[in-house]
Amino acid sequence: MLGYAFMGKAHSNAFRKIAYITWPPPLEPRLVGIAGRDEAAVAEAAERYGYEYATDDWRTLVEDERIGLFDNGGPNALHAEPTIAAAEAGKHVICEKPLGRDAEESYEIWKRVAATGVKHLCAFNYRFVPAVRLARELVEAGELGEVRHFRARYLQDWADDVSLDTWRFHADEAGSGALGDLMAHVVDLARFLNGEVEAVMGFTKTFVPGRQVDDAVESAVEFANGSVGTLEATRFAHGRRNALQWELNGTKGSLAFDMERLNELQVFRADGDRARGFKTVLVSEADHPFWQHWWPPGHIIGWGDTFVHELHHMLQAIAGDTDVAPYGATFEDGYRAAEICDAIVASGASAQRERISYRTL
Amino acid sequence: MLGYAFMGKAHSNAFRKIAYITWPPPLEPRLVGIAGRDEAAVAEAAERYGYEYATDDWRTLVEDERIGLFDNGGPNALHAEPTIAAAEAGKHVICEKPLGRDAEESYEIWKRVAATGVKHLCAFNYRFVPAVRLARELVEAGELGEVRHFRARYLQDWADDVSLDTWRFHADEAGSGALGDLMAHVVDLARFLNGEVEAVMGFTKTFVPGRQVDDAVESAVEFANGSVGTLEATRFAHGRRNALQWELNGTKGSLAFDMERLNELQVFRADGDRARGFKTVLVSEADHPFWQHWWPPGHIIGWGDTFVHELHHMLQAIAGDTDVAPYGATFEDGYRAAEICDAIVASGASAQRERISYRTL
Amino acid sequence: MLGYAFMGKAHSNAFRKIAYITWPPPLEPRLVGIAGRDEAAVAEAAERYGYEYATDDWRTLVEDERIGLFDNGGPNALHAEPTIAAAEAGKHVICEKPLGRDAEESYEIWKRVAATGVKHLCAFNYRFVPAVRLARELVEAGELGEVRHFRARYLQDWADDVSLDTWRFHADEAGSGALGDLMAHVVDLARFLNGEVEAVMGFTKTFVPGRQVDDAVESAVEFANGSVGTLEATRFAHGRRNALQWELNGTKGSLAFDMERLNELQVFRADGDRARGFKTVLVSEADHPFWQHWWPPGHIIGWGDTFVHELHHMLQAIAGDTDVAPYGATFEDGYRAAEICDAIVASGASAQRERISYRTL
Amino acid sequence: MLGYAFMGKAHSNAFRKIAYITWPPPLEPRLVGIAGRDEAAVAEAAERYGYEYATDDWRTLVEDERIGLFDNGGPNALHAEPTIAAAEAGKHVICEKPLGRDAEESYEIWKRVAATGVKHLCAFNYRFVPAVRLARELVEAGELGEVRHFRARYLQDWADDVSLDTWRFHADEAGSGALGDLMAHVVDLARFLNGEVEAVMGFTKTFVPGRQVDDAVESAVEFANGSVGTLEATRFAHGRRNALQWELNGTKGSLAFDMERLNELQVFRADGDRARGFKTVLVSEADHPFWQHWWPPGHIIGWGDTFVHELHHMLQAIAGDTDVAPYGATFEDGYRAAEICDAIVASGASAQRERISYRTL
Repeated sequence: MLGYAFMGKAHSNAFRKIAYITWPPPLEPRLVGIAGRDEAAVAEAAERYGYEYATDDWRTLVEDERIGLFDNGGPNALHAEPTIAAAEAGKHVICEKPLGRDAEESYEIWKRVAATGVKHLCAFNYRFVPAVRLARELVEAGELGEVRHFRARYLQDWADDVSLDTWRFHADEAGSGALGDLMAHVVDLARFLNGEVEAVMGFTKTFVPGRQVDDAVESAVEFANGSVGTLEATRFAHGRRNALQWELNGTKGSLAFDMERLNELQVFRADGDRARGFKTVLVSEADHPFWQHWWPPGHIIGWGDTFVHELHHMLQAIAGDTDVAPYGATFEDGYRAAEICDAIVASGASAQRERISYRTL
Repeated sequence: MLGYAFMGKAHSNAFRKIAYITWPPPLEPRLVGIAGRDEAAVAEAAERYGYEYATDDWRTLVEDERIGLFDNGGPNALHAEPTIAAAEAGKHVICEKPLGRDAEESYEIWKRVAATGVKHLCAFNYRFVPAVRLARELVEAGELGEVRHFRARYLQDWADDVSLDTWRFHADEAGSGALGDLMAHVVDLARFLNGEVEAVMGFTKTFVPGRQVDDAVESAVEFANGSVGTLEATRFAHGRRNALQWELNGTKGSLAFDMERLNELQVFRADGDRARGFKTVLVSEADHPFWQHWWPPGHIIGWGDTFVHELHHMLQAIAGDTDVAPYGATFEDGYRAAEICDAIVASGASAQRERISYRTL
Repeated sequence: MLGYAFMGKAHSNAFRKIAYITWPPPLEPRLVGIAGRDEAAVAEAAERYGYEYATDDWRTLVEDERIGLFDNGGPNALHAEPTIAAAEAGKHVICEKPLGRDAEESYEIWKRVAATGVKHLCAFNYRFVPAVRLARELVEAGELGEVRHFRARYLQDWADDVSLDTWRFHADEAGSGALGDLMAHVVDLARFLNGEVEAVMGFTKTFVPGRQVDDAVESAVEFANGSVGTLEATRFAHGRRNALQWELNGTKGSLAFDMERLNELQVFRADGDRARGFKTVLVSEADHPFWQHWWPPGHIIGWGDTFVHELHHMLQAIAGDTDVAPYGATFEDGYRAAEICDAIVASGASAQRERISYRTL
Repeated sequence: MLGYAFMGKAHSNAFRKIAYITWPPPLEPRLVGIAGRDEAAVAEAAERYGYEYATDDWRTLVEDERIGLFDNGGPNALHAEPTIAAAEAGKHVICEKPLGRDAEESYEIWKRVAATGVKHLCAFNYRFVPAVRLARELVEAGELGEVRHFRARYLQDWADDVSLDTWRFHADEAGSGALGDLMAHVVDLARFLNGEVEAVMGFTKTFVPGRQVDDAVESAVEFANGSVGTLEATRFAHGRRNALQWELNGTKGSLAFDMERLNELQVFRADGDRARGFKTVLVSEADHPFWQHWWPPGHIIGWGDTFVHELHHMLQAIAGDTDVAPYGATFEDGYRAAEICDAIVASGASAQRERISYRTL
């Protein structure tokens, strides 16, 4: 594990829970080593989460032959080099989103890692929310018909404070602001639920003078399937703590979702029922995605549990040599998300619609 | 009254209720004449709503010296000529939105009517929803701080039917589709709550082959006050019947609204209360806008009642020779909304950001 | 019309709207006279609502042969005598709820009025909320299966103020407090949606020392159909303005409702759909109850509009000599509601379950 | 650990997470042994959750001197004997709710265990929902004023199936149905948030012919603090999966909660703000109860996580020799809940109000 803070905690918790919440687990995770910059902090993290050792040099992990899976939860500037090195050392790799700081770096990571043949997963964990997966299944089954609209926004509210400082505000470490942090999730869910984005018109915005990264992103988009919508992200929406909200409208029905109520999916079916309206579906039934692992209906799960599903999926892919795609995000998905994010930046700069073309290997 | 269908009914109902719901009324409306194309239908409407006579020629109304206020609720193609004629005959005028079929026509109506000196109101009735007016008052009082975001969408779902026909699908009568019908409302509320729109990037979309007007509109926008957001409108959002939804985020708090629950305003205050969250405010208190006319708290009003407030406002302006602006929309507001709508169309055509400049008289 | 305040306004508004909102109206209401205690106020009300004359003696109305329908919206102590007198003078009668101040008085009113053969309606207007009527239709059609539970509560919050005084706190005028004012509505809807109440255990509660009437009512009840539940009413629930909330659970599904969102019905169908949940039905479709009178879908109505439906129903009954029951509440319904309310008081006094038997004529 | 199914999984998960989610943990849990009736199943559970051994005889655990804490998650009939034996062997004890199958058995367990001096916790885990604890803190701080009402209901919907069989339907194993399973939780939260219950009127109901236990419970109650309300529980409310809903109304405000949205607390403050309404508080802030252990704001937790808080509380009490009460439920609380449940049964049988007196040691 690289990183011991927010994502380090989230991933470590998941690795530990997989061993008994999913049963039998596809592989029994063994927590070998954890790396981080602050020696004391990483040592404490190792003790806390049960890693066999701590190191302040991620290369130690890369060189450790006992390690078969390298999980990169470090800051964005530390995604490329360690991830590539680990893959080239033959380890399967997980990398937190955004994959790279821009499309170029993301492409490089994907290309280099794909060349090694290891399994790779870009940790867009919101694909592993049961309500999101259920949505995907409904769309795949054609229950929404032809899609007309997909609109989404990721609203948070913590950044409207000039005195605040974090690596997330430093261009060299983060690459971008709300764009890579929040919009990347929006874009990935848009692709996951509605397919490729073809063109964008939009821009980023920085409200705080002197801040190096964007605070918000606004865009109007066109999808390959002919549907249209808006995609947004901001850290300046007071009262919205973790509100990744999306809505999909099709010819046979609609879906809507809010991450602050992540156990719920709003489902509308144009089925002619006189009692017509959106259902509030509590996604916690025995036949709902991932619920074979959990509790009786209505006993909801938490945000942290999405990582259990995600890392379980990766372990299954490794154990069975199956594909990470399409339910998990691969590094190609990480790269494509970055292309779209970059296109929005480009659109803001050029004041023009940007058509997106994706590179292949 | 010109028009006897949807808007004719809504306005006539309001004129009749003003006489006793608002007390004492600023003026006692006398329903003199009503005009429409279908002779039998307009005759029945006159009987139904209590107009003294019916006519299939709107010029009869214009020439009737007893009429002091001409209310144009006809289809969009019939906005310009009758409204201008009535004003030039010295009558105060109300015109349904959109004012004209495009900015050019809207400007012409405004210019010609303004030159006569009569009162003019463009019937953006959603300004007269109590929750919307309360929002405006909170913004004006500085309770939201500096605005960062305004996002809005008007979602309906009735048009996804190739067999459907209505004047609203005919380019010559309607001018546009979701743009003039729905987006005009969105744009007017954006301006009412957050000030002028400076630039747009976006486009319109027609899903049904052969349909002459747009089915949906998507845009990312920049406001003069530095805030940014997205504005959308569609007739293709299954499950959304009349969902004009907007959200405003400021440095001191946020507001959110949905027309399907028009008696409610969501209010977030960044006041440091440990119990932090959006309030669901039932806008029905004695000290809430327009509630001096109505019932005890919690006894909600309906969509039709917004016209009571709007036409009451117009009668007050006439009776007291006061300004329709800023709480009522004037023809200048109608024109400005059209400029923004046209700019979105232009942006779609040019694939470029369109900066908006407003003409003056 | 007897009464010119809250109910006088609500009924007068309805009579005026029936003339054109329902078309053609079953009868064209002519507002002949209005009575009230305060001479100046009733004169102003006559002018405001368009009554031909005002009087401070309700007997004038009873004696006026031009009046065919007597509508009693006065305080509870003035329900019995004027209503009976009007009926005995051959006029159809409407009486606000509660019918009498207790079951005994209510029975007397019913018996005396029924003997005259006129039409009688006890103004339980919440039967005429579209969502409530839709609920009734769904229950009648068997779409909920066998009912297991009906629970309801009417929560308001205006009475927690020792300095407040109103006729509603005087035992002689009001008869009771939350019981007759709010619980009567709860009980009527319980009967309307779920049939007769057979037994109650419960009590009333007065929080404010010295107040003559109850502030709240609590009960656990058994219905004739074998279902069970709780019924409550209070004027001491801060934050609840007009929250008449009920829920019905049957073997095939459930319904839930809140008067503060009176245009919505929550509908759950146990139909095996994997996407399982309550639908939020906006009761505003062309095929929904009462919507032939109103607007396009999603353009919601207000609390005051329920009286339009109710009085329209009464005019239909008069015009067509049809029954007020079962969709309108007759005086028998008014009496039965009073029996249940009295039984709760009796249960509180006796500390025992009270089985209810209803008197017949 | 006694029990390996639903509660065994929930408690084991919590013991494992405490070791790293709470940091530093008050005690590092060591999972020594697990007991259950089905030899193969308990062996698998030991392997799954990491217990050192499995046994089909709970006495083995009682006799194991390495075990300092005995956690009883077995069926109700197995609560008394093993729990008492473990305490008498000097082990601290946790027992799932309901403590005993009735008040008599519950009292016996409490008396016998209290005599040993060990720590005892009755696992009413809903006290450890952050929103519930926040509610308790607000009540304790006087922010709600004097309480007028507490109403609650626990609605589930799985039992309306005559073909279904489970130990929960057997009188000898379960003691009761919805009463001990669901109503016990309702009663405990009522006491936790609003103090002692003094009197009840109510009854239980069995819908399915031949079923040995109750399906639903209805009651009207009086609290020692003068407030009144209703308490209900049912397994027959279609569409409600795990809906433990409660509302508290005080002279300064109100609170409302639904377990299906367990991260949210509805808070109304009667503070004179013109924008008046219930706040939807996402209880996930750094200064909210238990959130020192978790994620950034808005990243919600799940139902299973309430056990982490509960068992952490017990470990703290053991480590620091502090009281389990008042935030954790002791066996006295388990006994008192049983007294209230029994009083409702008694009230149904006697058809009378039952005043409750609690036994002491």
